[in-house]
Amino acid sequence: MSNDTHYKQNRKSAPADNTPYRQNRKSVPADNNGKMDSISYFSHHSAWGSYSSFVLGLIGEGGGFILGDVRPPQNNVYIGYKRQNEPLYLLPFVKDSKNKNEKKAYAGDQAEPGDNHPGESITFFREKEIKRELKWATDTWIVKNLVFRLITPFGYIQEPGKLDPIELKFRLNPSIVASIEFDNSESDIPMTGIFALQGMRRPLSDVCEDSLSGAAYGTEYGFGVKKDDSVQEIIDWRVTNELFSRTNQLHRLSNEGGLLFHIKPGEKREYIIALSTYQDGYVTTNRRARYYYTSCFDTLEQTLDYTIKNQKRYISMAQERDTELEESGLNTYKKYMIAHFSHSYFANTELLIDIHNNPLFIVNEGEYQIINTLDLVIDQMFWEMIFSPWTVRNVLDSFKAHYSYNDYISDDQNGNPEAGIGFCHDQGVKNMFSPDHHSAYEMSGKTGYFSYMTYEEVLNWLLTASYYSVLSRDKEWLYDEKETFKAIFSSMKNRDTNNDGIMDKDSVRCKGGKEITTYDSLDESLGQATNNLYLAVKTWAAYINLAALFTRLSLPELSAQAEDKARICSVNIIRHYKPEQGYIPAVFENGNTSRIIPAIEGLIYPYIIGDKDAVSPEGRYKEFIQLLKKHLENVLVPGVCIDATSGGWKLSSTSANTWMSKIILNQYIARNILQIKTDAWDTWDRIHASWQADTCSLFAATDQIASDTGKDLGSRLYPRLVSSILWMNYKTKDAR
Amino acid sequence: MSNDTHYKQNRKSAPADNTPYRQNRKSVPADNNGKMDSISYFSHHSAWGSYSSFVLGLIGEGGGFILGDVRPPQNNVYIGYKRQNEPLYLLPFVKDSKNKNEKKAYAGDQAEPGDNHPGESITFFREKEIKRELKWATDTWIVKNLVFRLITPFGYIQEPGKLDPIELKFRLNPSIVASIEFDNSESDIPMTGIFALQGMRRPLSDVCEDSLSGAAYGTEYGFGVKKDDSVQEIIDWRVTNELFSRTNQLHRLSNEGGLLFHIKPGEKREYIIALSTYQDGYVTTNRRARYYYTSCFDTLEQTLDYTIKNQKRYISMAQERDTELEESGLNTYKKYMIAHFSHSYFANTELLIDIHNNPLFIVNEGEYQIINTLDLVIDQMFWEMIFSPWTVRNVLDSFKAHYSYNDYISDDQNGNPEAGIGFCHDQGVKNMFSPDHHSAYEMSGKTGYFSYMTYEEVLNWLLTASYYSVLSRDKEWLYDEKETFKAIFSSMKNRDTNNDGIMDKDSVRCKGGKEITTYDSLDESLGQATNNLYLAVKTWAAYINLAALFTRLSLPELSAQAEDKARICSVNIIRHYKPEQGYIPAVFENGNTSRIIPAIEGLIYPYIIGDKDAVSPEGRYKEFIQLLKKHLENVLVPGVCIDATSGGWKLSSTSANTWMSKIILNQYIARNILQIKTDAWDTWDRIHASWQADTCSLFAATDQIASDTGKDLGSRLYPRLVSSILWMNYKTKDAR
Repeated sequence: MSNDTHYKQNRKSAPADNTPYRQNRKSVPADNNGKMDSISYFSHHSAWGSYSSFVLGLIGEGGGFILGDVRPPQNNVYIGYKRQNEPLYLLPFVKDSKNKNEKKAYAGDQAEPGDNHPGESITFFREKEIKRELKWATDTWIVKNLVFRLITPFGYIQEPGKLDPIELKFRLNPSIVASIEFDNSESDIPMTGIFALQGMRRPLSDVCEDSLSGAAYGTEYGFGVKKDDSVQEIIDWRVTNELFSRTNQLHRLSNEGGLLFHIKPGEKREYIIALSTYQDGYVTTNRRARYYYTSCFDTLEQTLDYTIKNQKRYISMAQERDTELEESGLNTYKKYMIAHFSHSYFANTELLIDIHNNPLFIVNEGEYQIINTLDLVIDQMFWEMIFSPWTVRNVLDSFKAHYSYNDYISDDQNGNPEAGIGFCHDQGVKNMFSPDHHSAYEMSGKTGYFSYMTYEEVLNWLLTASYYSVLSRDKEWLYDEKETFKAIFSSMKNRDTNNDGIMDKDSVRCKGGKEITTYDSLDESLGQATNNLYLAVKTWAAYINLAALFTRLSLPELSAQAEDKARICSVNIIRHYKPEQGYIPAVFENGNTSRIIPAIEGLIYPYIIGDKDAVSPEGRYKEFIQLLKKHLENVLVPGVCIDATSGGWKLSSTSANTWMSKIILNQYIARNILQIKTDAWDTWDRIHASWQADTCSLFAATDQIASDTGKDLGSRLYPRLVSSILWMNYKTKDAR
Repeated sequence: MSNDTHYKQNRKSAPADNTPYRQNRKSVPADNNGKMDSISYFSHHSAWGSYSSFVLGLIGEGGGFILGDVRPPQNNVYIGYKRQNEPLYLLPFVKDSKNKNEKKAYAGDQAEPGDNHPGESITFFREKEIKRELKWATDTWIVKNLVFRLITPFGYIQEPGKLDPIELKFRLNPSIVASIEFDNSESDIPMTGIFALQGMRRPLSDVCEDSLSGAAYGTEYGFGVKKDDSVQEIIDWRVTNELFSRTNQLHRLSNEGGLLFHIKPGEKREYIIALSTYQDGYVTTNRRARYYYTSCFDTLEQTLDYTIKNQKRYISMAQERDTELEESGLNTYKKYMIAHFSHSYFANTELLIDIHNNPLFIVNEGEYQIINTLDLVIDQMFWEMIFSPWTVRNVLDSFKAHYSYNDYISDDQNGNPEAGIGFCHDQGVKNMFSPDHHSAYEMSGKTGYFSYMTYEEVLNWLLTASYYSVLSRDKEWLYDEKETFKAIFSSMKNRDTNNDGIMDKDSVRCKGGKEITTYDSLDESLGQATNNLYLAVKTWAAYINLAALFTRLSLPELSAQAEDKARICSVNIIRHYKPEQGYIPAVFENGNTSRIIPAIEGLIYPYIIGDKDAVSPEGRYKEFIQLLKKHLENVLVPGVCIDATSGGWKLSSTSANTWMSKIILNQYIARNILQIKTDAWDTWDRIHASWQADTCSLFAATDQIASDTGKDLGSRLYPRLVSSILWMNYKTKDAR
C-alpha cells in the first residue's frame, strides 16, 4: 500500500473483524499443590453439532453467545445478587460498554431525568473469592451465596438416520443448560438475583408467555427459565438499573436483557436455565445444507422449551460424564485439559442436513473456520471413534467423493507421470464449501504454509480409515473402499521414486513450490514433506496399516508388498541415525540437525489398530523402535525438546512454536507405547495446563503455543486437542 | 457503575456495536453557482423491500454491503484500473485494514517470502478529480478513463398477491445493478480494471461456473458479471496483490474478493454488475415471517443470475426515473435531496411474507431499527401513495389488528374513564415484533422521549387512513373501517374533556408521565401533547378529514359533529394568538413563548384529500388560516425560526434541534398552501442540501440536525425524508 492515501481519516480506525491477537497475561505458573493455578480463562459451552457457543470465564472480558463462529464475544454478562441497602454483587464478567451513549442517540438535545442512580453500587467478586471447577460437562463458579453452573450435556450419538425422531430431537437440540443457585437462607432480607446479558433485545415472554421467562436476540439465541412468580424479565440500557430503581418496565429499544430472581428471606433456590441458539435456512454454499436440528425444531423458543422440559435427563447425562472424568485416576491438570479441550471441540462441531436429506458432518478449524481439515480429522478421530464413529465415516466419505483427485508427480524431466489418488487438505471455509477436488487452504508455488499437503493427507485419510474400519468392524465399508486402499498404496509407491520407502516427489499441483506437512507454521524441521523424519515414520505406519487392511480384505499379496515397503522404509530411516549424538535429524538433507519429538508420532497408528508387535521394542521392528525410543530419550532434554525457560514440551529443537495437540499424541506414545519412565509427567502436565488456563486464557483451547512464554501463536479456539481423550483410555462402550 | 471494577483491563475496549456517533466535517457551505458543493457523502443503494444496502460515497471511509441494517459498513471498496508501469488508480473508497495481520495468524513463527510487492503503488483519485452525479435512481462517479455507476431501479409496485409470478420476481428481486466502464481507447497498453470488496470470501464461479464471475460472502451477499474471457476472479488478503504480482490463484482463506477486467489497448468496455443480498429462513419473532423474495428465489446465485439476465429492463426503469426527476424543473439542491432521501427510504423497506402467506410490509426506522413507527408512516405515505398504495393499507391494517388498544384517560379523580381506541407508536424493533397492543418505544412514567404518543398516533392513523381511502378510492376498505373511524372520533372527543377541541388528558398508560408528540427529542415547545399548538392544529385537521370521511360513509350527522369540533378547535387556537407579537405560542400554558414552524403542519391533511377550502385564506376557516400564515411569516425570521448562524430552517425558536423531514412538509405547506412569497427558497435549499451532503455525510439521509452547525443530532440513515416527493407534484399515474 502506497503512502498516497491522501484522503482524510478523521475517524477512529474500524476494528478488524478477524484479528484475535491480544495482549496476554502472566507467564508460566508456580506449582500449586496439584491444583489449577488460574480460574480466569475463556471456555466454550456448546451444544454438539450446532456450531455455536456460550463463552465465559475470562475475568473482566464479558462473554456471551456466538453462532457460526468460535471467537469469544465481549458482551457484558451479569450474574449476581443484591439485598436491600447492600451493593449489587456480580461475578466479574462485565466489560463496561457505551450503552448510555446508545440511549443518547434517541434523545437529540433533550436530557431526560431519572437516568442516574446515585445509590448504584456494584461490587465485583474478586478472583480469590471465586472457586471455579471446570469438569468434563460442567463449569461451575462458586462464591458467597451464589453457585452458577454451565452444563454441557454430551454422550454417544448415533447416526441421525438410525435414531428414532424422539431420541434425535434430544440429541440434536442446539441447547445447553445452566443452573443458578441463590442462598439467602442466612438472611432476613429479601435477595434479588440476576442473570442477564448484553446483546439481548427481547423478552422471551413475548412468544412464550405461558411457559418461559427469559431474553433473546432476534431469532438466533436466547435463554429462558420456567415461568415462575419469583422470576422477572428485564430489558434495559443497563440491565442492572432495575435493581436500583424499580420501574418494572421493559426498555424494548435497549440491548441488555435477562432475569431477576426474587428470593425470600431464609430461602435457598436453584433455577434451571436453558441457553439455545438457532439458525434457520440454508447456511452453506456450493453444497447446500442447513443445520440438522432445523428438522427437529422450528424456532428458538421450541428449543428452549424442550430443554426446560428435558432438563433432568440433560443434567444427569452431564453428571455421568463428570463422574467418569473424575474417576479416571488422572491428575488435576490432565482432567482440566480434557474438560477444556472437549468444550472447544464441541464449539467447532456442526451437523448439517443436505438437500438430499443426508447428514453432513463438519468440524470447523477454530479461529480459521476451515471445514474438516483432514490433518485435524486424524486427531479428532480418537474422540469421534468413541462418541460418534459414523461422523468419522461421514467425513471420510465426503473427502473421497468430493475432495480427492487424480494427482501427478512434479517431475518435468519425466513428463510429470501419474501419481494416483491425492486428498485435499480441507473442504472449504466458513460454511463455504470449495469446488470439488480443491481445498480452501492449498495454493501453488508455495514452500511454506498455504502449500499442498497432498502426500500427508493421503496418509491421513488412510490412517483414519484404517482406525475407523478396524474399530467399528464396519466390514461393508471396508470392502466398499477396497479399490481406494489399493489406489492409496499405489499412489504412495509412485511418490517414492527411489523405492526407499520415503516420499521423494511433490504433487504437480505445487507448481514449483514444495509439499508441506500439517506442521506448516513450524520451521523447516517439520515443514517440508520430502525427506522428512516425521512424515517418513508416519509413512512406515501407513504401510503397516495398509498391510493389515489388505489382510482383512483377503489380499495377501498386497499385504506382503505393503509390509515390505514398511520394512524398506524403516531401514532407510535407521540409516539416518547419528549414533554419536543419538538422534535422527528432522530432515534427511542439507545437513539438517534439528531434533524433533514427532519422530515417534507415526507409532500410534499400528498400535491403535491392534498391531502392538509392530511398535514393540521386542517386535519385528525392534531395531527401529528401540532407535526411536533412544532418539526420544535424547531429545527430551532441557534446551533440546524440553523448553529451557518453561520446562514444557517443544516439538522441535529449532522452533519455539510448539503444538499442544501433538504434545498430547506424542506423550501418549512415549508413555504407553515406548514406556518412557520419568517422574516429570505431572510437572509437564502442570506447565501445559497453565498455558491453556493462563497465558492463552483469552482463547479457550489453543494449539500453537510459544514454548518459552506459553503464549498463543496460532490455532486458537481449536478442536484438535480433543485427542486428549486418549489419556482416559475411554472405550466406545463407556459412552453408549 | 461503581469504581470497584478491580479486574484487569489489559485490552483495548471493544467497539460499541450501536453508536454511530462520529466526528463530522466542515460546516455550512458557500454558494457554488447552483451546484452541489460536496461529492463525499454516504448514500444507500438498495433493492426495495430487501432491508439491505450497498453503501458508498464518503471519501476515505470504505463501504459495502449491509443486510438487516442501514449502518454503513467500513469495508475497503476497490474500483479503479492499472496499466503496466503505471500505479493502480482507485476511487478513494479504501479504508486501510489489518488484512496482512490476519494472514499472519496462519503463519505461527514462520515468515513467508513473496508477501511484499516492492513495485506496488496505489494512487487514489482526489476529490476534485472526481465528478459525482446522484440522480433519482443512479449514482455515478466519473474520473479519467473510468465511469462507475450504481443503479437502483424502482417504480410502481403492485400488491404481491395481485402480481403474476413473472412480474413478482422482477419486482421483488433483492438486487441492484452497477455499471463500470473502462476507457483504454487512447492507450496502446493493456489496462486491467478492478471491482472488489473487503469481506468477500468466495468466488462466485464455485456455484455459477458457467454463467457468472464474481465474489460473495456466504449465502448472504455478493456480486457478479456475465462470464467473459476478459474477466478474472480474485480472492486475496489484499485483493490488489494480483495486479502487482500475477499468480492467478485464489486465496480462499482470505477476505477480499472481486473481479479484474482485462481491457485491450484501444478498447473501451462497459460491464454490468449485479449486486444482490439474500437472507434465508424466518427472520422475525412474535409474528413469524421471511423475506417475500425467498418465495421467488432460492439462493443468492439465482438473484444474481436473474439480475444479469434482466439487466436491460432494470436499467431502463432506472433511466426513466432519472429523467423524470431531471425534468421536474426543481433546483439542483431539491433534486439532490429527493434522490438522496429516496435512496435511504429504500434501504429501510422490508417486505415479508408471514406464515399465512400474507404480505407484511415494514419500513424500519433508520439507525433505531424500529418497525413501522406510526409517526413516520404519515410522512412516508406521500411516497407510498404513489409507488405502493397497498403498503399504506397493509401497515394501517396491521396497526389496527395488532397495535391498537382500548385506552383509558389518566384522571384518577374521575376513576380513569374509558377513552376508546388508542394506537401504538410502532410494532417492534429490529425484526422483533412487540406483543399485540404494545410498542417497543413507549414506557410509563416518562415526560420526555420514550413516553406514550397515544393521541398523536390516533391522529396519525386517521390522517393516513383518510389519505389512503380518498386517493386510492378503495371504498371497500373505507366501509370496512367505518367503525374504526367512529371509534377514533369518539376517542378524540373523550380526550378533550373541556370540549375546546384541544386534547386535555393523557392516556392512563402514562402512569404519572405525560404524553409526548413525534417531536420527542425537541424541547418543551414541541414535546408535550396536551395544550400543544402543533398537535392542536393537527387535531383540527383530523376533525376536518373525519368530517370528509363520514360524508363519504353517508354519515351526515357525524360529519357535521366532526366539522363542529374542527370549528371549536380553530376558535380556541385563535384565542391564544398574541396580536402584539404576531404569533401563537407553542404551548398554551406556563407562559410559554416558543415560536414554532409546525404550527402550520396540520394544514396539509385537509389539502391532500382535496378540501382546499378548509386551508384557504379565503375559505370557511379564513381567520384561522390567515392567522397561521401571519404566524409563519413572523417566525420565519433570522434568530427566531431561521437559524442565525446557518440560515437554515429551525422548527422551534427555543431548540437548535431541527428535523429535515418536517422542514420538507412545512415548506411545502408554506409555499403551496399558504403561498408564502420570498426569494429565499433556493438559498434555503442550498443550506439544507449541504447539511446532508457535507455535515451529515457520514450517515446518508439524516433527520435530526443541529440548525446552527448542520451536524447530525439523531434519526440518522432515516426513511422519513422521502416525503420530499411532495416537491415533485408526482402523480400515482406517473409511476405506473
